[in-house]
Amino acid sequence: QSGPASEIVYGHRGMSLEEDLNVTNRYYIETDQAVIYKKPTPIQIVHVDYPKRSAAKITEAYFRRASTTDYNGIYRGRYIDFEAKETTHENYIPLKNFHRHQVEHMKRIKRHGGIGFIIVKFTKRSEIFLLDADYLAAAWDESLNGGRKSIPKRIFQDHGSLIPQKYLPRVDYLQNVCEVYF
Amino acid sequence: QSGPASEIVYGHRGMSLEEDLNVTNRYYIETDQAVIYKKPTPIQIVHVDYPKRSAAKITEAYFRRASTTDYNGIYRGRYIDFEAKETTHENYIPLKNFHRHQVEHMKRIKRHGGIGFIIVKFTKRSEIFLLDADYLAAAWDESLNGGRKSIPKRIFQDHGSLIPQKYLPRVDYLQNVCEVYF
Ligand SMILES: [Mg+2]
Ligand SMILES: [Mg+2]
Repeated sequence: QSGPASEIVYGHRGMSLEEDLNVTNRYYIETDQAVIYKKPTPIQIVHVDYPKRSAAKITEAYFRRASTTDYNGIYRGRYIDFEAKETTHENYIPLKNFHRHQVEHMKRIKRHGGIGFIIVKFTKRSEIFLLDADYLAAAWDESLNGGRKSIPKRIFQDHGSLIPQKYLPRVDYLQNVCEVYF
Repeated sequence: QSGPASEIVYGHRGMSLEEDLNVTNRYYIETDQAVIYKKPTPIQIVHVDYPKRSAAKITEAYFRRASTTDYNGIYRGRYIDFEAKETTHENYIPLKNFHRHQVEHMKRIKRHGGIGFIIVKFTKRSEIFLLDADYLAAAWDESLNGGRKSIPKRIFQDHGSLIPQKYLPRVDYLQNVCEVYF
């Protein structure tokens, strides 16, 4: 081990996966390793006030469902695209955590030569896995044909890869991307 | 000419560039040519009401400045990133249409092997150009050293490429991307 940056600290319980990924992505940008961002939450704006001497104020708006995944960007010249989810279930993640548009989006990305995956945190044991989008797509398609409505943790263990959790970066998923896709 | 899809219709005055690009990007997705989206506008949410039997309602929120460009995605296996702007000036676009973070973002994208450019519409003559992000970066850096605070249209004519405007897709910038980057 070479100092705090490579120290593995299992835990950060209480930190949401999204928060950890945002800090991680900022670290990747600052260290010039990758340029990956979370997209803003899509909002349907209904009413805006424009006060005389201050900033425009949105007074009525609603959350919209995203038609794509939450994260995308570039790493080592490749287009990267993923969705991140937490599950409190010990042995599976329900497919209802994902939306049809997201699954279709990831299929498109892969067809066009991009790297697409999901990052899933099993919060009970604080384990975070990267799993290629093909496995999500397969589980999704099977569920439409009467198959199970979830992805078992076994799939993540057998076909995904466990993401190292450290002090900095917190969720070092680019290590996994490197191993799996390069 | 082979029918309406390839008919060049200069104009669409009244249509904003953003609207034209959204329709164009939808067309690219439907025809499976590329997967490029506009990112949602970033919003700072201050207050949300959660009514009993209806959707969560945002009652106080503010617009935030984007730290990246508005559009990104994948085309022929390459990461694509751009910002789109209109100018009413006949012979230049002021640099204040762009933000420092956007220029830095585009420099990063190019350094990591992505394709980065701006799309600028000169509304007076309804001409739309694609210009590689390097020219924006150069103009930006010169302006910081006392140079002019705008990019002359001449730069677009000499180093950019004129985007064909058609019925479908309206602003066919992938033709230009093909010519310039592939
Ligand atoms: Mg999401
Ligand atoms: Mg913008």
